[in-house]
Amino acid sequence: MPGENFRVYLAERPKAEIMAGTTLKTETVPLPKAEDLQDGQLLVENLYLSLDPAMRGWMNDTRSYVPPVAIGEPMRAATVSRVLASKSPKAKPGDILPTLAGWTEYAIIPDATIQPIDTYPPVTHPSDYLSVIGMTGLTAYFGMLRIGEPRAGDTVVVSGAAGATGSVAGQIAKLRGARVVGIAGSDDKCAWLTRELGFDAAINYKDPDFPRKFREATPDRIDVFFDNVGGEVLDLALGRAKEFARFVICGGISQYNSSNVQGPKNFLSVISMRIKMQGFIVLDYAKEFTAARKELAQWLDEGKIKRKETILKGGLQVAEQGLIDLYKGINTGKLMVEIKSPTAPSKL
Amino acid sequence: MPGENFRVYLAERPKAEIMAGTTLKTETVPLPKAEDLQDGQLLVENLYLSLDPAMRGWMNDTRSYVPPVAIGEPMRAATVSRVLASKSPKAKPGDILPTLAGWTEYAIIPDATIQPIDTYPPVTHPSDYLSVIGMTGLTAYFGMLRIGEPRAGDTVVVSGAAGATGSVAGQIAKLRGARVVGIAGSDDKCAWLTRELGFDAAINYKDPDFPRKFREATPDRIDVFFDNVGGEVLDLALGRAKEFARFVICGGISQYNSSNVQGPKNFLSVISMRIKMQGFIVLDYAKEFTAARKELAQWLDEGKIKRKETILKGGLQVAEQGLIDLYKGINTGKLMVEIKSPTAPSKL
Repeated sequence: MPGENFRVYLAERPKAEIMAGTTLKTETVPLPKAEDLQDGQLLVENLYLSLDPAMRGWMNDTRSYVPPVAIGEPMRAATVSRVLASKSPKAKPGDILPTLAGWTEYAIIPDATIQPIDTYPPVTHPSDYLSVIGMTGLTAYFGMLRIGEPRAGDTVVVSGAAGATGSVAGQIAKLRGARVVGIAGSDDKCAWLTRELGFDAAINYKDPDFPRKFREATPDRIDVFFDNVGGEVLDLALGRAKEFARFVICGGISQYNSSNVQGPKNFLSVISMRIKMQGFIVLDYAKEFTAARKELAQWLDEGKIKRKETILKGGLQVAEQGLIDLYKGINTGKLMVEIKSPTAPSKL
Repeated sequence: MPGENFRVYLAERPKAEIMAGTTLKTETVPLPKAEDLQDGQLLVENLYLSLDPAMRGWMNDTRSYVPPVAIGEPMRAATVSRVLASKSPKAKPGDILPTLAGWTEYAIIPDATIQPIDTYPPVTHPSDYLSVIGMTGLTAYFGMLRIGEPRAGDTVVVSGAAGATGSVAGQIAKLRGARVVGIAGSDDKCAWLTRELGFDAAINYKDPDFPRKFREATPDRIDVFFDNVGGEVLDLALGRAKEFARFVICGGISQYNSSNVQGPKNFLSVISMRIKMQGFIVLDYAKEFTAARKELAQWLDEGKIKRKETILKGGLQVAEQGLIDLYKGINTGKLMVEIKSPTAPSKL
């Protein structure tokens, strides 16, 4: 309805998988008003909502790098928003920029959650702010360059390689001169990795011959493993690690929905092969985001990194199912929801 | 017998635990002769034999940091030997020094396996060459200082803390000003750690209240975890890790004899807490051994590090049972076998 703001909140903490219609619930509330803005706040409308594997973790009431989403609170998300009204020097009405406005059509946000508009590189696709030059692109950037540190000629293996982070991580390793092997969940995704993104090899982990093909694709073993998946793929990679390999522990999507988490059985390889396994959170590099976004935007402009997005239409109504499908690998590249086309009229 | 050399060889690769009398077998062979020495060789008699958790791994026919011991070959070990005859400039008859002569009374060894005698600090107890200033002391030194990097005020937790490596690792962390918590397998060992070695706390992992006591002993969580044990203790430590904790993966004795290795279930904490888990092998630091031995010997002389050894008498005949008992935690400090008292007469 024109006078109402549609949003999605966390209703119940899932034990294992997210349960459609139970974990998250929808509600309509009055639209926020520009006259309610206080100093340092902005009124925004959301254009795109990012769906991320990390969302499952934010639903757990456990110690983590961010507090859990509270029951009844709108679900957290990275978003791209248009500013409708502003009492902040950081952005003015009409500006389109990345925000953390959550699963809502409209929101009043504090400007502590954004950077000044001129620190974001200009883009022709606003959705880039959620993908290559958004959090997933930055995650790939810092994880690969600061922890993986690939050198020319290194063998770099990326799991979840057709996803938002993995696809950029692999392309960055290629820019550093590495031989890059991707692991993904379908033959189509693998073909995209090798034909479009220039990966040297890609393997479908659902292939019955996956372990053998994995060995064959890593004849010189593995110098850098950029892991988004965990579980059996991580175990295989441990078994193929070269001495002094760097394992970038970025995600473990195979385990996020599990009530019986499987630790890496090949863990003792960490000793015998002197592996460094290091976890990280992209927010730790926040002071360097402006410079990194600039470099990523330049690579994108020059065609050195290719964008790929899976954009779900249908607004916030389809977001929960989209998130459930994310863990099934529905997406190639960055998965997001179009909450409102940048050209559609505003309710406000 | 006076004319015979007694030794122990690997007869069969164990599937899980070492089987007394089956995994290792004994044999007598003719004594080596000084007149058979070639250039670059030394004839030695072994005084002390080191028993190390790593020995179980050397019995496996898998890719590792050293080749497996071959079936029929004398079992590998660090030893302290007296030189009886030498065609090497590195040591002369009468010298006592650390060697890798294996489970044998006498051996002809290549001088590539030793350093020149003057690179070893002089000791009053030759057994120190297997403990504080031997491989286990060096393992503690490089693992703690290069990977753990404890700072004053850090909470450092050491598992296997009453063992040869753990006890030195904890003492080194104390020298760096850290608060040190040890985990060991008996109340007596825990009392030794706090009363004799100056650990700030020690917890018996066999205590039914171990998880609660572990939490209480780490009120500021864990900055450095020096792990010799793996398994459930590693999982507990992951659950208590502070952001950016360093996990020194030195050993996993709880898993060495297992045919069904348990990976760390709390592995995803590596991401949320940005943990660096790093494995290492002391041999990687070989170029720095001379300087490190000198520093360790000085700390020992000054009483800053205390030695503790469990020395089994009875010669090589008791070594296999000693090794089996090592995995049960028989020892406090360094476990070794006296093959021959330094003052007993030689067969040669």
